[in-house]
Amino acid sequence: MLSCANSIRAQRSRIGTLPFQQFVKSFGSESKTSFNYDGAFQGEIQKRKDTSTYRVLSNINHVINDQGPKAFTNDHDKVIDVWCSNDYLGMRMNKEISNAIHSFVDRYGVSSTGSRNIAGHNQVFVDLENSLAKLHQKEACLVFNSGYVANDTTLATLAQKLPGCIFFSDALNHASMIQGIRNGKAAKVIFKHNDLQDLEAKLAKYPKTSPKIIAFESIYSMNGDIAPIESICKLAKQYGALTYLDEVHAVGMYGEQGAGVAAALNVSDQVDIITGSLAKSYSATGGYAVGSFAFVDFIRSFCPGFIYTSSLPPHDIAAALTSVEYLKTSNKERALQKSAVRKLKDALTDSGIPFLSNQSHIVPIMVGHPEYGRLISRDLITDYNIYLHHINYPTVAKGTERLRVTPTPLHNDEAILNHFVTALKELWKKYDLQGLDYWKANGFSVNEPCQFPLVA
Amino acid sequence: MLSCANSIRAQRSRIGTLPFQQFVKSFGSESKTSFNYDGAFQGEIQKRKDTSTYRVLSNINHVINDQGPKAFTNDHDKVIDVWCSNDYLGMRMNKEISNAIHSFVDRYGVSSTGSRNIAGHNQVFVDLENSLAKLHQKEACLVFNSGYVANDTTLATLAQKLPGCIFFSDALNHASMIQGIRNGKAAKVIFKHNDLQDLEAKLAKYPKTSPKIIAFESIYSMNGDIAPIESICKLAKQYGALTYLDEVHAVGMYGEQGAGVAAALNVSDQVDIITGSLAKSYSATGGYAVGSFAFVDFIRSFCPGFIYTSSLPPHDIAAALTSVEYLKTSNKERALQKSAVRKLKDALTDSGIPFLSNQSHIVPIMVGHPEYGRLISRDLITDYNIYLHHINYPTVAKGTERLRVTPTPLHNDEAILNHFVTALKELWKKYDLQGLDYWKANGFSVNEPCQFPLVA
Ligand SMILES: Cc1ncc(COP(=O)(O)O)c(C=O)c1O
Ligand SMILES: Cc1ncc(COP(=O)(O)O)c(C=O)c1O
Repeated sequence: MLSCANSIRAQRSRIGTLPFQQFVKSFGSESKTSFNYDGAFQGEIQKRKDTSTYRVLSNINHVINDQGPKAFTNDHDKVIDVWCSNDYLGMRMNKEISNAIHSFVDRYGVSSTGSRNIAGHNQVFVDLENSLAKLHQKEACLVFNSGYVANDTTLATLAQKLPGCIFFSDALNHASMIQGIRNGKAAKVIFKHNDLQDLEAKLAKYPKTSPKIIAFESIYSMNGDIAPIESICKLAKQYGALTYLDEVHAVGMYGEQGAGVAAALNVSDQVDIITGSLAKSYSATGGYAVGSFAFVDFIRSFCPGFIYTSSLPPHDIAAALTSVEYLKTSNKERALQKSAVRKLKDALTDSGIPFLSNQSHIVPIMVGHPEYGRLISRDLITDYNIYLHHINYPTVAKGTERLRVTPTPLHNDEAILNHFVTALKELWKKYDLQGLDYWKANGFSVNEPCQFPLVA
Repeated sequence: MLSCANSIRAQRSRIGTLPFQQFVKSFGSESKTSFNYDGAFQGEIQKRKDTSTYRVLSNINHVINDQGPKAFTNDHDKVIDVWCSNDYLGMRMNKEISNAIHSFVDRYGVSSTGSRNIAGHNQVFVDLENSLAKLHQKEACLVFNSGYVANDTTLATLAQKLPGCIFFSDALNHASMIQGIRNGKAAKVIFKHNDLQDLEAKLAKYPKTSPKIIAFESIYSMNGDIAPIESICKLAKQYGALTYLDEVHAVGMYGEQGAGVAAALNVSDQVDIITGSLAKSYSATGGYAVGSFAFVDFIRSFCPGFIYTSSLPPHDIAAALTSVEYLKTSNKERALQKSAVRKLKDALTDSGIPFLSNQSHIVPIMVGHPEYGRLISRDLITDYNIYLHHINYPTVAKGTERLRVTPTPLHNDEAILNHFVTALKELWKKYDLQGLDYWKANGFSVNEPCQFPLVA
C-alpha cells in the first residue's frame, strides 16, 4: 500500500490514463470468495470513463489582484482567466469581509468548538440569522453548514414529520433538493420544468386538506431561467400547499438589498420557505432557510443535518454576515455584473455562439456533446489560458452538454472578453460545433438579448 | 409578520415560555380547509417540550486568553468556564493555525468560488488530502464539508452502488452514519454495541460472496468507550465484509502522530475505510474519508454530498492542514489533555459523582433524568458560571441522560477543577441524584480509574 504523499500524487496524476485492468486488484488478505469491493468501485468509475463523464479535478488557485478574474494553475504554473466562478459578484476580494475574518480569528480563535446545541454559539450566529430573516422579511432563519445541507436535511425532515405529505418537485431541481425529498421517503410528484399547467393538473389530484410542498428554484442553476414564482404561489394557496423556494443563485444579486427574485417581484410574503447559500454571491460558506417562527423552530429541533454536526467557525459566520450586510446597501457590484453579462451575451451573438436565452447572469453556452465539452475545456486552458469547466450528464441532460459561463464585475475588461470570445469562435470552428440554427430547430430559445427586467 | 431583528430576538428569547395555543396560528390567506403547517410544526415542538427534550441554544462566546477554558455569555455578560468543548486539545488558540488563516485570506481571498468539480480547487486541498492519507497510511483521501456529510453521503453512495450490500451497524453509531445507511436504502442489521458474538452471529447469516459493510466507531462519542477494532476486522475478513471506521473522536489525540485508535493499536492496515472530522481536536471545519485509491476515486465520482456543493474556503482547509501537521509532531497537547482527564476522574470518584468507566478523554457523568439534566445545566451557568450542556434523548437512551464532560489541556488548573467538582457535589445534593451504587446495581461500569493504555 502506498503511504508516501509523492507516490499518491504521482498516482493521482496518472488518473484516467491507466487501463482498467491495472486498477482492479484483489482486496488485501481476503480469500477468493469475498466480494471484490475495489473491483466494484472501479467498475462504476469505468462506466463514467466510457461515457466521457468521468470527472477530473483541476488545480485552480485564485489570487488577490486588481486585474480581473485571474488564477494560477499549480501544474502548469501559468496565469489564467476564470470564466466559471460562482463568486458571482467578485466579493472574494472584498476587504470588509477579510477584515471581519481577521478580527474574529484574533478575538475568538479558529473553531466553533462543537455543535450549536451542545457547545453553544457565538453571538455572530444570532446576528447572521437575524440579518437574513430581515433580508427576506421572514420571522426567523436557521443557518446550516452549506446550502446543500440546508435543502437536504430540511426537506427530508419535513417529509418525515408531515405524514402523508406529497412533494411537488420541479423537473430541473438541484441535486440537494432531490436528495432531501428522496431521503425523506415521501411521495414525490415531478412537474415539468416551470410548467404551471402541469403543476396544477398534478396538484388537483389530491385533496386540499392533505399536506403538500411545492419545491422549486427562483433561478435555475444550469439554464439560468426564472420560475413563475407568483403563479406557483397562487396555485399553492388554491390547493393548500406550502411553497419551498431555493434562491441560491439569486440572493445577493436580485431584488432590493439582494433579497432575491421573490423580493424583486414583490412576492416574498407569498413564499413560505426560502433557502439560500452563503457560498456563492456572498463568497463565504454555509447555507440557510428562512420562514415562519414555528417552521424554523421545527427544523432547528429536528433536522439531523443541523443537530449532529460541528457548527462553522465564528470567523466564517462573521464573513457571511459582513457580506450580507454589505450587499444590502452596495449596488456597485450588481451593476457591474449586469454590464459584464450584457457585454458577453452581445459578443456571443455577434460571433454566432449559441447560448440559452434567459434574464439572469448565467450564460449557458451550448455544446451538445460530452466529449467536445471536455475537449473545449482542455483546449481553453492549454491553448488560451482560460479556465471554464464543461458541464455534462448527470448534471444536465444528455445532448444538452454545455459551458456554464458566469461573468462577474471583473469580466468587464474588453481585452479579457475579446480573448474569450475569440477562443470560443476558433474552437467552434475547430470542432465544427452547432450554431444557433441547430438549437432553434430543436426548440431551444437561444441568444435573445438580456434585459434583466426584474432587477430594480 | 415580524421583520425587525429586535422583535425576532425578543420573540426568540421568550421561546419555551409561551403556552402552546399562542404559537398555533392560521397560515396566511389560505382557506380553512388547507392543512395547518405551522400547527403541525408546533405540535412536534410541543412533544419535545412535554418530554423535557426541547433544545435551547446558548450564547457562548469563547475568547482568546491564556487563563483557561473561558468564554462570556452575551445575555448574562459574565465570564464562564466551559466544560463541554469539542476543541479537545485547545487548538482553537493555536497561533500557527490562525497565521495560516490570515495568510490564506490575504493571498487567495475569502471564498473557494464553487464546487471542486466546476470551480477547481486550491492546491491546499490536495496537500490536506495527501497529509491525511499519509497520516492513516492509506492510498487516498477525500475531504468533505463536514464529518457529518462525509459519513452521510459516503454510506448512502456505497449502499446505492453496491447492489445487495448489507450494512452491519453498531447500535450506538452516530446519527451521521445512521442517516447515511438509511438514505442509501440498503438492508441494515444492527448489532449490539461492541458485541463480537452478536456481530458474528449476524454476519454468518449471509453468504461470504455478498457485499457487506461493518460500520462502527473507534471511540463512541457519548460513552467514550472503545471498539474491539482488531477483532471486528478479523470477523470482517472471515465473512468477506468491508470495515468502515469513524475515528471522529480519536484523530489528533490517539496513536502516533494522532492517527487515531486503529493506529495506536497498530491495526490501521486492517481497516478499509476510516472517516474523521477536522472540527474537533483539529479545531478547523470539514471532514474526510480515507481508503484505497479505487474507493476514494469512487466516492469522489459519485457522492452527491461532495459533488453538488461549494467547497470550503481555502483558508479553512489551510487551517485544517496546519493543525493536522502540527499534531503529527507535537505531543504536548495530548499529554496535557490526558493529565486533565485523570485529575477530573480522580476528583469525581473522591466526591462520589458517577461517571461511565472508559479509557478515553470523554467523561460521561450520569444524571439519569432529562429534567434534572436541564436543571443542572441551568444552575451551573446561573450559580457557578460554568457552561456544561446536558445530553438528553434522542442523543442518548432514556434513563441514561448525562453531562458529557471533555477536559482539555486548559483544564489542568486546580482552581477551575475544584470549583467544578464542588458545584457538582452541591447539585447532586440539591437534587438528590443517584450515586455510584445505583448505576452499578443497574449493570453500568462506573468510576474505574483511567489508564489510557492504548496511548503511546
Ligand atoms: C440550486 C442550488 N441549491 C443549493 C446548492 C448548494 O449550495 P452550497 O454550495 O452552499 O452547498 C447549489 C449549488 O451548490 C445549487 O445550485
Ligand atoms: C461519531 C461522530 N461522527 C461524525 C460526527 C460529525 O462530524 P462533524 O462535526 O465534522 O460534522 C460527529 C459529531 O459531530 C460524531 O460524534
